[in-house]
Amino acid sequence: MSLERKIWSEQFTEWFSEMLLKAEIADFRYPLKGCGVWMPYGFKLRKHILDIMRRLLDETGHQEVLFPLLIPEDLLAKEAVHIKSFFEECFWVTRGGSTEFDVKYALRPTSETAITPMVKLWVRSHADLPLKLYQVVSVFRYETKATRPLIRVREVTTFKEAHTFHRSYEDAARQVEEGVEIYKKFFDEICVPYLISQRPEWDKFAGAVYTYAFDTISPDGRSLQIGTVHHLGTNFTKAFDFTYETREGKREYPHSTSYGISERVVAAVMMVHGDDRGLVLPPNIAPIQVIVIPIPYKGVEEVVNEEAKKIVEELKAASIRAEADLREDVTPGSKYYDWEIKGVPIRVEVGPRDVERKEITLVRRDTLERTVIPRDKLVDGVKELMEKLQNDLRERAWKWLREHVHRTDSIEEARKLIDNRQGVVEVMWCGEEECGFRIEEGISGRVLGMPIDTKEEPKGNCIVCGKPAKQVIRIARAF
Amino acid sequence: MSLERKIWSEQFTEWFSEMLLKAEIADFRYPLKGCGVWMPYGFKLRKHILDIMRRLLDETGHQEVLFPLLIPEDLLAKEAVHIKSFFEECFWVTRGGSTEFDVKYALRPTSETAITPMVKLWVRSHADLPLKLYQVVSVFRYETKATRPLIRVREVTTFKEAHTFHRSYEDAARQVEEGVEIYKKFFDEICVPYLISQRPEWDKFAGAVYTYAFDTISPDGRSLQIGTVHHLGTNFTKAFDFTYETREGKREYPHSTSYGISERVVAAVMMVHGDDRGLVLPPNIAPIQVIVIPIPYKGVEEVVNEEAKKIVEELKAASIRAEADLREDVTPGSKYYDWEIKGVPIRVEVGPRDVERKEITLVRRDTLERTVIPRDKLVDGVKELMEKLQNDLRERAWKWLREHVHRTDSIEEARKLIDNRQGVVEVMWCGEEECGFRIEEGISGRVLGMPIDTKEEPKGNCIVCGKPAKQVIRIARAF
Repeated sequence: MSLERKIWSEQFTEWFSEMLLKAEIADFRYPLKGCGVWMPYGFKLRKHILDIMRRLLDETGHQEVLFPLLIPEDLLAKEAVHIKSFFEECFWVTRGGSTEFDVKYALRPTSETAITPMVKLWVRSHADLPLKLYQVVSVFRYETKATRPLIRVREVTTFKEAHTFHRSYEDAARQVEEGVEIYKKFFDEICVPYLISQRPEWDKFAGAVYTYAFDTISPDGRSLQIGTVHHLGTNFTKAFDFTYETREGKREYPHSTSYGISERVVAAVMMVHGDDRGLVLPPNIAPIQVIVIPIPYKGVEEVVNEEAKKIVEELKAASIRAEADLREDVTPGSKYYDWEIKGVPIRVEVGPRDVERKEITLVRRDTLERTVIPRDKLVDGVKELMEKLQNDLRERAWKWLREHVHRTDSIEEARKLIDNRQGVVEVMWCGEEECGFRIEEGISGRVLGMPIDTKEEPKGNCIVCGKPAKQVIRIARAF
Repeated sequence: MSLERKIWSEQFTEWFSEMLLKAEIADFRYPLKGCGVWMPYGFKLRKHILDIMRRLLDETGHQEVLFPLLIPEDLLAKEAVHIKSFFEECFWVTRGGSTEFDVKYALRPTSETAITPMVKLWVRSHADLPLKLYQVVSVFRYETKATRPLIRVREVTTFKEAHTFHRSYEDAARQVEEGVEIYKKFFDEICVPYLISQRPEWDKFAGAVYTYAFDTISPDGRSLQIGTVHHLGTNFTKAFDFTYETREGKREYPHSTSYGISERVVAAVMMVHGDDRGLVLPPNIAPIQVIVIPIPYKGVEEVVNEEAKKIVEELKAASIRAEADLREDVTPGSKYYDWEIKGVPIRVEVGPRDVERKEITLVRRDTLERTVIPRDKLVDGVKELMEKLQNDLRERAWKWLREHVHRTDSIEEARKLIDNRQGVVEVMWCGEEECGFRIEEGISGRVLGMPIDTKEEPKGNCIVCGKPAKQVIRIARAF
């Protein structure tokens, strides 16, 4: 059982901004809209999340690299669809000191056009393929709409973009599947549930053959895109005239893919588990996994403080991220409050009685349930509880997500569900763009696309035109 | 004994560019001058170097954060000396899409003016001080002079900048000393020798009270600045009207410091140890510490390949970064050549006789010396040799540096030493700027400043005016 989430869903937006700052994740009071600061605690959370991503990519033969931020306009313009989509979203560097440039430079909105011409210099023959690269960088979008911390920003500070190059369309398609598998593992590890959909033609990445996207559902019933995987075909390699020598000595264009996540994954972690008291962080990514709080009674302050320090040492020796809160002029109650905001998964309370009885009191953040274990079972007890908490968070979040995916054959009903913030709705569709647009108008929402995670055959008729359905599609109010 | 370095020093510049690409460290063929790509092997080297820096900073209570790239012009202009120095060096963002901005944004040239106004929001009283932050980011300098890979670039991709805030001038001065100690440990760990000098007034950081700098000496006798530590006094906190409440309830300006390193430390590692055959990397930062090369004779290919794989497994199990080069159509000689370029510290050669005799042949990269050890001593033998190599590299580099610091009381002699690429020269100085400038003119070089590492008293007279000397100063041709 999780705590009541009464702030869900009316006050979700307010809760989110407030918690960002109160939990010291990020400070968006920087004097440029849509740009924020990762504070020390938030930076650590981000780091643990990125560590998981890096491990998953390294294990599957991806190599980390770092490409320049500035992309000359003529490079960015090589792929026609791409530049058309991104031009208005770019920040442009036009001057160095007081010198006006002849060619202006974009702050990378994504790196296909920076990476492809360089990889062209590295790849000679089929033996150099596949090549799987990734980088973690800032990308920039000149958002004119309202910005939102971590969710709709101008400097995306945590863009993990993978770029891969292959001998054939099929190899690249297999890579798309691998990308999807990596993201599934990643989101499972950080306990964020997801839907995977193939975006409709009109909403795929500019320059892609097709785009798969991961969406989660926010506490106020909106969909939040948290990852995308693109098959780019030869669109970019052709644009840069990038060929390789095949086994047979012919020259062919490599097929490429790209896939990315951003700090939206941190936002997702916050929103899918948080409650009225603050954040609830999965133990494997929590900056502090265990907070130890002494309960001092007059005359035994020394004893409980010493015990608190000893407990921290033992936990640290077992590679558990533990800290003691030994502040002197703060009551235990205030300390509980502070660390509950920060989402520390486990609290250890150390009172004189615990010391006497050689016991440890553990309190889990998600349910506030207390467990008393023998003092000499400290490390095992904590590890066990962390694992349980981790699994419970994941299951609870998945259950919630599943409860917020609906099926209907009435566009009225779909609109009502979406207006009432009930999540994602699946409907039948004939596959015609015209009907797709009519659905989006009808619900004032967005077509997320065709389910990739369920292999269900469409049944019945298009919700708009009544013709036989060709696809199940998901619709939602999107962030 | 190190190998002959005959390319030293005439062809050093050429060697450096060539090795960057051949060893797959970085590719500067990107179509924007002064911007390069970290290739997978170079990225790993950079990562191991940064890991050491992060460890040293974390151990001393520094917390990692991440601030925005874009600094609005009015923010950057708050500190008068700072903007005066940096304005002409900034890249300026003036447009979003096709919209011209009213206020333009600088790509951070350094982050004092982004960090100070935010820290002002976080610090209320003396209890919040000291605050020690750092970030690893790209900074940008619009270099109009000739750029040089890793050394003089427009996107500095590996800027580790620490920013600290303190209650008093003295606390900040102590922090400067801590910064120096951290950098000494850092350079010792990566085996780069250094001189520490207090920069003359006219060459200190724009906005600093004083600047200490670390310089090393390149194989062609030039000084290369590889780290700086600044006492900023209240220059930035005053500019942002940032005060805190003291113990006594008064309001005072915090004193701040900042200190930074860049990818020049990677360049330094390459240049101080490299030789005619390529890089020579200290084992603790080498992406690959041991390369295992099978020497296949007809009929026993399988045996030596299997043995090579086993050796790699055993080394990896002991946390040694080992790989086997099992390429089929490449001779062992070519493999040696490739891995020598990349500077892999230890090569293991596996021939049929080694297998038979249960022996291991180790070849160290720096001297190409061979050692044969019993097969069952593999891990210990490799660890021992890595440690020895690491120490030898450090000592050899320090010896070389010391041999290239000269003392003279003749400006003629100083010029000759510097023109002949003999390194750094120490001379006596009266302390007057006028004489300082005359020295710089006389040697067409640069005053590095007063030694901080040796506490020597000045003796004799100023090399220019003949008045009693107040300071020993170092001069050199600088990068």
